[in-house]
Amino acid sequence: MSSVPSPKGRPRDPRSHEAIVSAAIELLIEVGYAATSIGAVAARAGVGKDTVYRRWRGKPELVFEAVFTTTDQAPIPDTGTLAEDLTALLQGLIDEFHAPAAAAALPGLLADFTADPVLKSRIRSDFLAPSKERLLVVFQRAVARGEIAADTPVDLVLDTLAGAVFFHVGLVGQDPDRELAGRLAAVIAKGIEIR
Amino acid sequence: MSSVPSPKGRPRDPRSHEAIVSAAIELLIEVGYAATSIGAVAARAGVGKDTVYRRWRGKPELVFEAVFTTTDQAPIPDTGTLAEDLTALLQGLIDEFHAPAAAAALPGLLADFTADPVLKSRIRSDFLAPSKERLLVVFQRAVARGEIAADTPVDLVLDTLAGAVFFHVGLVGQDPDRELAGRLAAVIAKGIEIR
Repeated sequence: MSSVPSPKGRPRDPRSHEAIVSAAIELLIEVGYAATSIGAVAARAGVGKDTVYRRWRGKPELVFEAVFTTTDQAPIPDTGTLAEDLTALLQGLIDEFHAPAAAAALPGLLADFTADPVLKSRIRSDFLAPSKERLLVVFQRAVARGEIAADTPVDLVLDTLAGAVFFHVGLVGQDPDRELAGRLAAVIAKGIEIR
Repeated sequence: MSSVPSPKGRPRDPRSHEAIVSAAIELLIEVGYAATSIGAVAARAGVGKDTVYRRWRGKPELVFEAVFTTTDQAPIPDTGTLAEDLTALLQGLIDEFHAPAAAAALPGLLADFTADPVLKSRIRSDFLAPSKERLLVVFQRAVARGEIAADTPVDLVLDTLAGAVFFHVGLVGQDPDRELAGRLAAVIAKGIEIR
């Protein structure tokens, strides 16, 4: 793991990166978003605050990466129908928003993103980009099957799906029943289908 | 405006209530939600902090009342069709979430509500109750016209509408185009209609 020092300084130790991310997740679950400060994360990870700041601009950036970028490795659903594909996408969103660290982080994280002009402009690209890519593929197949029109508004549908899950699962914190993804997908699919 | 002192202490001056609410709205627009503290609001209103705390349990309760309880005086739409009624309801939500003070307050307010166990249980009743009542009336008429089934899930549809507006208007802060309410209403209406 040790490397020859370069003129730019010590190369970053990947173990620190993992320790910091794990510490952030633990603290989010233990004490919630507000109390998960950079200082608390650094202490839990056994590193200095500067070590954290060398990798992340601030708390929202760190928490976002810790909580929301380990997903979307799952294959894009291809069930043969739009409604079933949307059901699978929605179940992914529900699982993601309902995971303990994400549930603890999401409202405060959204608040910090919107309050920072630099981050606010990145909400759509940071939070929603992976889901948008997956939805685009699902839509392309649905267009090819004649289920929806080519000009179906992707951003609006994505905001509707993400917003519905955020309100229904993320805000109230109720355990989502196993029918939620299917019911919401059925409504949206029927709402945008042209056949 | 002055009253005879009672054994319980000075009766509350309604001018203080209005001054505090106005001060909160001004500060939200000027400095954002995080900086709109009870102290800053009290100073702007020309009252002591105890005067504020006598009326509101804390900052989230004050901001919520200042921003979100002056609406819903408009008559419940009765256009004759579900899609048009939903369009009117959605336009109301869009106008409400997009107003300057609300736009500044909403993400941080939701974060504070979810972080406080007392308030978290009141999210659905505080934030969404007025809209839910209006949606119920709209749904009852749609059931009577045979447009939707009597067991159409009100909470899920409401969360979907509010969530869509929150993500599409409240988070990114984009000026909503004049077609948004109609497009979203059309999708949802078509999604839940049974005829």
